[in-house]
Amino acid sequence: MTPLSTKVVMESARGIVPPDELWRIRARQRLDTLTKPLGSLGRLEDLVAQLVAIRHGHVALPLSKAVYVFAADHGITAEGVSAYPSAVTHQMVLNFLAEGAAVNVLARLHGVTLHVVDVGVDANFNNIKGLLHRKVCYGTKNMLRDAAMTDEELSLALLVGAQLANEAVDAGLTMLAIGEMGIGNTTSASAITCALMGYSASLATGRGTGLDDAAHARKIATIEAILKRHFAAQTSPSPLEVLRCVGGLEIAAMTGMILAAARLRLAIVVDGFIATSAAALAVALEPKVQGSLIAGHRSEEPGHQLLLDSLALSPILNLQMRLGEGSGAVIAMPIIESAIALYSQMAIFATAGVSEASA
Amino acid sequence: MTPLSTKVVMESARGIVPPDELWRIRARQRLDTLTKPLGSLGRLEDLVAQLVAIRHGHVALPLSKAVYVFAADHGITAEGVSAYPSAVTHQMVLNFLAEGAAVNVLARLHGVTLHVVDVGVDANFNNIKGLLHRKVCYGTKNMLRDAAMTDEELSLALLVGAQLANEAVDAGLTMLAIGEMGIGNTTSASAITCALMGYSASLATGRGTGLDDAAHARKIATIEAILKRHFAAQTSPSPLEVLRCVGGLEIAAMTGMILAAARLRLAIVVDGFIATSAAALAVALEPKVQGSLIAGHRSEEPGHQLLLDSLALSPILNLQMRLGEGSGAVIAMPIIESAIALYSQMAIFATAGVSEASA
Repeated sequence: MTPLSTKVVMESARGIVPPDELWRIRARQRLDTLTKPLGSLGRLEDLVAQLVAIRHGHVALPLSKAVYVFAADHGITAEGVSAYPSAVTHQMVLNFLAEGAAVNVLARLHGVTLHVVDVGVDANFNNIKGLLHRKVCYGTKNMLRDAAMTDEELSLALLVGAQLANEAVDAGLTMLAIGEMGIGNTTSASAITCALMGYSASLATGRGTGLDDAAHARKIATIEAILKRHFAAQTSPSPLEVLRCVGGLEIAAMTGMILAAARLRLAIVVDGFIATSAAALAVALEPKVQGSLIAGHRSEEPGHQLLLDSLALSPILNLQMRLGEGSGAVIAMPIIESAIALYSQMAIFATAGVSEASA
Repeated sequence: MTPLSTKVVMESARGIVPPDELWRIRARQRLDTLTKPLGSLGRLEDLVAQLVAIRHGHVALPLSKAVYVFAADHGITAEGVSAYPSAVTHQMVLNFLAEGAAVNVLARLHGVTLHVVDVGVDANFNNIKGLLHRKVCYGTKNMLRDAAMTDEELSLALLVGAQLANEAVDAGLTMLAIGEMGIGNTTSASAITCALMGYSASLATGRGTGLDDAAHARKIATIEAILKRHFAAQTSPSPLEVLRCVGGLEIAAMTGMILAAARLRLAIVVDGFIATSAAALAVALEPKVQGSLIAGHRSEEPGHQLLLDSLALSPILNLQMRLGEGSGAVIAMPIIESAIALYSQMAIFATAGVSEASA
């Protein structure tokens, strides 16, 4: 019998088409008519051409944009892989709802609607307002001993993200930023990076929120043991098996959102290491997703650069941030909007009375 | 007799004090109380600590900020160093006034007031509105044959920038972005980089607005001849002599503005290669200026990285832009504002009910 998770992914990814290359060419042609030296806007030109190709020309400002922060807990925290107690996931969700976290400040400043989603926090929020209540279960199991999720849990988490992408389109959004909160989830992201791409744990494992040398070494050893536990017998495990065994509920929800958002021709701005691990899973499941992805920033986590390279993504910002919460995706929004504004509002040579370069 | 230019510089630089290190420490202490892992905002933390140190704690939003775009022509264009005819300086000033250029679009989007300053454009603007009429003369002389400026022209251009910095403070501004427009001025910036820092012309010379290989080689040879013409007898010419012989009127005005703005404790966001050559001159004249400088972006011009390294400046953005006009300074503004917003609006651990990291 086909696992439920596979059916969810097939449904989410059904009919994804990559960005339209004819629209990308048209965008490049328009960029070359603007009153500036050819190509002189650099990455901004690539960015807006990508958006035009994704959106088939519909890139008007103001952008209708939102950031989704998926929160979940991780059984692996029992092994001491994080500098913070796992209760901080719950506490930070309350901080998001009280508007006190970094992503709140950035979203407010840059006009981005913030949605906080409980996919698997190990606490009861009752009916607290302002939270999207999509709890699948109270966190993953300790992946050093068991698969992080059952197939049903994985399926439900994928669906959470896919359904929110559908709701986003219904609400008129054209661009999504994707982030997360989950103490312990850099351990999942590192394990995913290793399992998907064959890297050693020492290459793909950083200090998370601030481990010292000894704790960092323990984290690497833990990830090596996790990989051995789940994948020793498999040279290239399937992406869904990787996600189920060593992922997280928030990572699965982001994967589901990315697959569905790409199908719906939304531009997807990916945050740091953990969000990019979800993007890598989505691309492994359906390569056509790649063209819809925008990397907001490059995080300090060493595994992030490995993932960005494998996805051929060049991050907009490199500010040495390592916070998560979607912060690195939201802070890239004004740069993306700059690219769109330049594209749509600059004068063109033909009417501005400015001479062009000699051939 | 002391040259007039020296008197202007001494007056502008009188009483510059570097950013206050006690305020920087206080800023760091506050950053460590915010609900985020220690140091996890990366460069944003350095940036806001610098601003707090420059402004002695006064970093409230919204920032009162403006961009000054200094325009002037260059006699060296007679030697074919640019892909564009020198008439484009005049044409682009008109484009700025008509709101059609890249910097107009970016300034509008990010709430930055744009001031366009004619310091030395080779055209009459009569009394056209919206332009700051500060013309010193109709462009520099061809520096392959003569010094670019007389001492009096240099002095007047330095004063233009210094006086505008004073007016900016009177108008309540706290942050200035500095940019320029002047066909041929990457040749000046390359010559300044070589003369100040001893680099060879081939290392410090790029393709400007888009030279092909042959024209690039000619530009390098021209700069070598210029350096030989003016500095063959001097192993380390004075910064003012460098500026007078191979600079530009817009570069001198930016140098004057930077010196005066640093004295007035304004934060100064520097644009690309040409603006940074003015910053390097200002620092060579008065090293205490350095702490007031913020590099908006890293340009594609190879000389820019040399200057940034020598000034120990780490640019906020690296978008492969090479446009000038202040565009790379203005597009960094939302990132600077993000840093201030995070600093002033995030919740602190003590009151948000979030656990801190284990020691």
